[in-house]
Amino acid sequence: MADDSFGTFRRELLDSGLVLDAGVEGLYGRSLAYEEIISGIMGLTTRTGADDGAMSVHFPPVIPRWLLEKTDYLKSFPDLTGSVHTFRGDDKLHARLLALVDGGHDWVEVLEPADVVLRPAACHPVYPLCTDGPLPDGGRRFEVHGWCFRHEPSADPARMLAFRMHEFVYVGDPDGATAHRDAWVKRGTAMLEGLGLEVDVVVANDPFFGRVGRVLAANQREEALKLEFVTPITSTESPTAIASVNRHQDHFGVTFGISSADGGVAHSACFAVGVDRTALALLKRHGLDPSGWPADVRARLWP
Amino acid sequence: MADDSFGTFRRELLDSGLVLDAGVEGLYGRSLAYEEIISGIMGLTTRTGADDGAMSVHFPPVIPRWLLEKTDYLKSFPDLTGSVHTFRGDDKLHARLLALVDGGHDWVEVLEPADVVLRPAACHPVYPLCTDGPLPDGGRRFEVHGWCFRHEPSADPARMLAFRMHEFVYVGDPDGATAHRDAWVKRGTAMLEGLGLEVDVVVANDPFFGRVGRVLAANQREEALKLEFVTPITSTESPTAIASVNRHQDHFGVTFGISSADGGVAHSACFAVGVDRTALALLKRHGLDPSGWPADVRARLWP
Repeated sequence: MADDSFGTFRRELLDSGLVLDAGVEGLYGRSLAYEEIISGIMGLTTRTGADDGAMSVHFPPVIPRWLLEKTDYLKSFPDLTGSVHTFRGDDKLHARLLALVDGGHDWVEVLEPADVVLRPAACHPVYPLCTDGPLPDGGRRFEVHGWCFRHEPSADPARMLAFRMHEFVYVGDPDGATAHRDAWVKRGTAMLEGLGLEVDVVVANDPFFGRVGRVLAANQREEALKLEFVTPITSTESPTAIASVNRHQDHFGVTFGISSADGGVAHSACFAVGVDRTALALLKRHGLDPSGWPADVRARLWP
Repeated sequence: MADDSFGTFRRELLDSGLVLDAGVEGLYGRSLAYEEIISGIMGLTTRTGADDGAMSVHFPPVIPRWLLEKTDYLKSFPDLTGSVHTFRGDDKLHARLLALVDGGHDWVEVLEPADVVLRPAACHPVYPLCTDGPLPDGGRRFEVHGWCFRHEPSADPARMLAFRMHEFVYVGDPDGATAHRDAWVKRGTAMLEGLGLEVDVVVANDPFFGRVGRVLAANQREEALKLEFVTPITSTESPTAIASVNRHQDHFGVTFGISSADGGVAHSACFAVGVDRTALALLKRHGLDPSGWPADVRARLWP
């Protein structure tokens, strides 16, 4: 049973104290020992991409509402969205809010949308940075990481509501995007195998929503636009994606009006590590005590 | 003019490339150089609190909705709240969502509340960890840091929508809470003055909402429950709070049913560093190029 395998590993993680139940399905606190694994993976990812000469940028866990509306995110993944709402009323409406809360009722009716939403992927905020004229020869490269949110509550500890993603992004011409993809398939495989993980690189699709989504998913697979690095965490039959490479073709170029050096519409591609999932994969593979992990794995994470 | 001083420093920060306009008032990207200041402040804060023997825990930027409802946050700060909403509909409702977005309309009507809200302060998730029986002698201590959200869009770069907070929390008896406060007034002052900042510790109040809020604020000041470490950033007349110590009395003890070792209702207190604000204070004080900061300041941040 898939649910049983989730449950066993989840209980082991909680019993070990590495992660803490934060009070809602899919939400976890992290111990210092767990966070040291996270830092190790992120440091290794940075070093693995050092030759990219990428600009390192860091963004908060919320992004502008207009940015999500401008991309196709609400079309493709409405069910994963985290829209932020706030209270802009007066004392009278405030009394109404408190009455709703006290009565155990939904209090959304007295809220208004804020100008931000939760960030679904680390790279979203970098594309608007590329709109001030054509890109330089060779395109632009970004390293970006941080907290992301996807609303998919699950008992599977590898499917967290909030998690860290670490990306290397290329924005430039079509050949450059393909080269970025190819380079990171190799680098990503070497990096993850160097951590002792058994990794397969497989054609995959994003979890597009609804009827139209089934068509989008089929197209994405047919063109092999998404490759996932999968490894067993809670199931050997259904290994978990811990990283991916994605060719966006001209999706963000068209959306944000980004021009490549030759004046064409920019193409983009990214390599993304699911940092928390990679931490879980390491804990599954090497055991719940990082001090006992193989010396070469430890040396790669914490040189 | 206060607004002018905001504007000048904001422009200097953006022109330097240390922070990036993320497309909504109060939301910023961060450069690698800026993030190294953040890491420096957080490392220094950890070392400053090493004698506390605190349990280090880390939580995502969202917390359970029930946790916010259980505390008095919605009573005291409804206008700062970030409530998270998502889409749980079918294909038909999805079509309605997309039509609203395409028409430039508010699309909240098709959303439902998620089980989480944005975290307003780093320490909120630690109190539920203290509910499994009476606290040990000497109480419990936590170190906790991470992204927080307060909905207060502003042109003042020191008033960000999303920012990092680093806290040392005590949960135990009343005397222990007072001792925690007193110890951290001294430690916090020494830590911030060691960074070359001119700091005053002043009685302060939280920005409680509305008519009732004015009474709460007056009470808080009268009992000196909140002390802020203030320093000039965008104004010398109205210096900015970059850290604070807070006695919560039995607020969280009552709310979460926490008992101290002697069986009484637990009291709590915390020291909180506004990490982004402290970074801005350092940039204002020592200039926009951290490589040129005084050697002793650099040594404390990056030993």
